[in-house]
Amino acid sequence: MTTDTNLSSEQYQQKMQRRKEIQEKRLAEASKEKGLIIVNTGNGKGKTTAALGMVMRSLGHGFRVAIIQFIKGAWEPAEKAVLSQWENQLDFLAMGEGFTWETQDRERDILNAQKAWETAVSFINNSEYQLVLLDEVNVALKLGYLKAESVVKALKTKPEQTHVILTGRGAPVEVIEIADLVTEMKLIKHPFKEQGIKAQAGIEF
Amino acid sequence: MTTDTNLSSEQYQQKMQRRKEIQEKRLAEASKEKGLIIVNTGNGKGKTTAALGMVMRSLGHGFRVAIIQFIKGAWEPAEKAVLSQWENQLDFLAMGEGFTWETQDRERDILNAQKAWETAVSFINNSEYQLVLLDEVNVALKLGYLKAESVVKALKTKPEQTHVILTGRGAPVEVIEIADLVTEMKLIKHPFKEQGIKAQAGIEF
Repeated sequence: MTTDTNLSSEQYQQKMQRRKEIQEKRLAEASKEKGLIIVNTGNGKGKTTAALGMVMRSLGHGFRVAIIQFIKGAWEPAEKAVLSQWENQLDFLAMGEGFTWETQDRERDILNAQKAWETAVSFINNSEYQLVLLDEVNVALKLGYLKAESVVKALKTKPEQTHVILTGRGAPVEVIEIADLVTEMKLIKHPFKEQGIKAQAGIEF
Repeated sequence: MTTDTNLSSEQYQQKMQRRKEIQEKRLAEASKEKGLIIVNTGNGKGKTTAALGMVMRSLGHGFRVAIIQFIKGAWEPAEKAVLSQWENQLDFLAMGEGFTWETQDRERDILNAQKAWETAVSFINNSEYQLVLLDEVNVALKLGYLKAESVVKALKTKPEQTHVILTGRGAPVEVIEIADLVTEMKLIKHPFKEQGIKAQAGIEF
């Protein structure tokens, strides 16, 4: 890119014309439509927020969407205020009871995760829903509250056009293998740890 | 984590109690509040969508928000449908004219980027806005349409409580240096390239 400044206007125009042709060819070749299995994982921020951005887009298209939150037992008030505006199209359920260090009871955590999973499966199999977000489900998998093989099986038999997003750190390799779009959110810098800054309204919750 | 299954209920409960104490100590130490400079970069998906998730949270808190889109000249209809619902709190401007291979005119691209930047600065300096999203600004920086030093200067002198998010691949090192929260969205798998799947409504736009 930096060499662009050495090109004449005409050379630049020709170069961009070639890029345009490549882009158009690429778009023409990409013609399949199918529901995607999307995984947002990694130790950085943005796994859930990026999924919420997709939820927003889907709602904007008039699609029906379900969100199952596997760890937290309640939505943050600001998230709830926004999501509530879409009640006709959106089901959003917080089915956890907090982080493991809050409940301190593994058996209860496992029961909650399995209840959340059953609910998730019923939304995934309901083809009226175009997008199902399984928020923090990777954490439940990582902690052994859910079996990767059950999740893989449900994803393999989902309705063809349904998109499913799985978020949380530590996505198991079995899920990554069958996913269509996998992004690792990688922490480069975080103000909490480095500067003693607290979680900020509008950013973290 | 996997060793947890070998612990007795009592040992598990003790372990989680210790984790809880560590978490509480960490939260107590993090007491500063300040507007964050946030960078979402990398070659993966989710840079803009994660920023839109933060926009959503901020709107839920009743904050005023501005979005300046540096590359595209228009919003996707679904995004527009959602964002329009918040017109009392949200300014969203698409100030580009499309990707470089569409305009094929470097001078015009530079002028557009600089106009977008001036608009961005006026929102950043207006302390009524708690969050300003500079969408794809990193691309404008990478292509040399904007100078990193101008951007750094404006960020350094911004109102203290204002959050600014900069998205796009190729964030310059000068911006990363002064940022508080930097996440690299890393592509692990992408269905476009690997399976010939086209951009999907609700997911990509």
